[in-house]
Amino acid sequence: MARHELGPAGLAVSQAIERMVRGVDRFVVGCSGGPDSLALALGSRWVSRRCGSRVRVVIVDHQLQQGSDEVAERTRQLVARRGMEACVRRVDVDANDPDGPEAAARTARRAALLDVARGEPVLLGHTLDDQAEQVLLSLARGSGATSLAGIRPRSGQFWHPLLEVRRAQTMQACKEWQVEPWQDPHNSDPRFLRSRVRTELMPVMAQVLGPGVAQSLARSATLLAGEDDVVAGLARAWADEHAVSANELPGLRGVEVGLARRVIKDWLPEAKMVHVDAVLGLLTGPGGAGVDVPGGRVEVRRGVLYLTRRV
Amino acid sequence: MARHELGPAGLAVSQAIERMVRGVDRFVVGCSGGPDSLALALGSRWVSRRCGSRVRVVIVDHQLQQGSDEVAERTRQLVARRGMEACVRRVDVDANDPDGPEAAARTARRAALLDVARGEPVLLGHTLDDQAEQVLLSLARGSGATSLAGIRPRSGQFWHPLLEVRRAQTMQACKEWQVEPWQDPHNSDPRFLRSRVRTELMPVMAQVLGPGVAQSLARSATLLAGEDDVVAGLARAWADEHAVSANELPGLRGVEVGLARRVIKDWLPEAKMVHVDAVLGLLTGPGGAGVDVPGGRVEVRRGVLYLTRRV
Repeated sequence: MARHELGPAGLAVSQAIERMVRGVDRFVVGCSGGPDSLALALGSRWVSRRCGSRVRVVIVDHQLQQGSDEVAERTRQLVARRGMEACVRRVDVDANDPDGPEAAARTARRAALLDVARGEPVLLGHTLDDQAEQVLLSLARGSGATSLAGIRPRSGQFWHPLLEVRRAQTMQACKEWQVEPWQDPHNSDPRFLRSRVRTELMPVMAQVLGPGVAQSLARSATLLAGEDDVVAGLARAWADEHAVSANELPGLRGVEVGLARRVIKDWLPEAKMVHVDAVLGLLTGPGGAGVDVPGGRVEVRRGVLYLTRRV
Repeated sequence: MARHELGPAGLAVSQAIERMVRGVDRFVVGCSGGPDSLALALGSRWVSRRCGSRVRVVIVDHQLQQGSDEVAERTRQLVARRGMEACVRRVDVDANDPDGPEAAARTARRAALLDVARGEPVLLGHTLDDQAEQVLLSLARGSGATSLAGIRPRSGQFWHPLLEVRRAQTMQACKEWQVEPWQDPHNSDPRFLRSRVRTELMPVMAQVLGPGVAQSLARSATLLAGEDDVVAGLARAWADEHAVSANELPGLRGVEVGLARRVIKDWLPEAKMVHVDAVLGLLTGPGGAGVDVPGGRVEVRRGVLYLTRRV
């Protein structure tokens, strides 16, 4: 197959992208050089030629692994040789970030991509398999629907057109396009929980629950996203109606627990679920004095919650 | 330890029961003779003495395994010797039930328990581990919140006081009470999906995601139950407001997809999620003629859904 033609996997990738960016004049693609995002870049090239849109590929060099600059430059050249606009952005990641180096890398990467994008949508290459892994990781934390809903197709400026495409398809698409993707050693490094989910847990899940388990997990994520949106909308409407302010949350007593949890979570964006439940306990329990939450302390008086911020 | 005294596991079981049945004069316990429900029965004995409530133990003989009548009678004697009221109910299970023999056994068992209970609550011995397995089984089907919420603490007349107790605790409680529970060979029979989840999948989940994974799954179930209740309530209110009738569902166009799915599901109780999405597609898609659903056909005209029942 000539390298500019579309094979079946390349077609699946390209059509998934087209469905999402149809009518969009300009967009950016985040590319690590791995199979998912390389297929995303080359599929975007096909879409941009078909639709006359302008696409720019951004390769972020996190400078976390030896030789990361060479990987980034090799990826830049690879997509540039296919006639795509491409640039490398180097970022500094705080390896001592309290949330861990992976989270810090993600924050730095997303900031760099938004900086280049200047308001254009940024396409990312997360696949159905990433989505399935995300659901399992959220389950491992005992999360509710917001987190179990996994990666949303559109999350602000970040768009994820490949959430219904399998990882194996992106690899196959790279083969069809005759490009050799970079294999990030972190992806199979057992020190990272996600890679253990991928290499150790998912195969057993498929063996016990059936080969369609990744699709089922992704399907659950989609259904939960829909339900999550409903509860989120209701919580916002409730907060508007009850004159919730930054330091005062009245009227929650007697409200359904699922809605109350969400209203409290919106009121205290930095709180974890354990704090939310402790605050809820102030209303439903024997009525202790108050609970500490990130950034302050919440107390209850006559059914009204008051937040005192720590300075 | 004397057999009437409480060890730590027996205490955990008994207190969990007491929290749920406090103030209830009379209740029934469903008992298979396995460790969970045997611990439930003996914990209920402790609670009934403490609270002066009357408890009856019902052992259902499904007549599906050779010697099931002996297992049932042995269990009856075992709890009767501890001074509890106990009876065996024999049921006929339709082994050719289209939903499979397990579902048929469950239906027959529940009917027998309700028949004996005559309106009293029926306690069942599902543990936190059952809840975790239930969440995984629902994920394997790609379900939404209603199903992922797993076993509810109270589901009509059936109550589940042990959802925060571990299976190992019920076994330990049986040891403390010096009773030998029956080990159902089905529980480790690899022909049953649930037993494979228990014996093959859960250990790998704990190994990869950490030893707290069963608690996390159960915690997700609780959070999703809260969110599910909110969406369910909203869907009922929406249906009332929009004059939904058995054959006509107006006004759904433009409604959030998570709420629309639930309204359609309530309207078509026998429909699977695939039917719900097909019906939703009538409103959002290019507008095909109609879709077949269990028991009939749904068509759309000017944004109103019409159900024609098959006779």
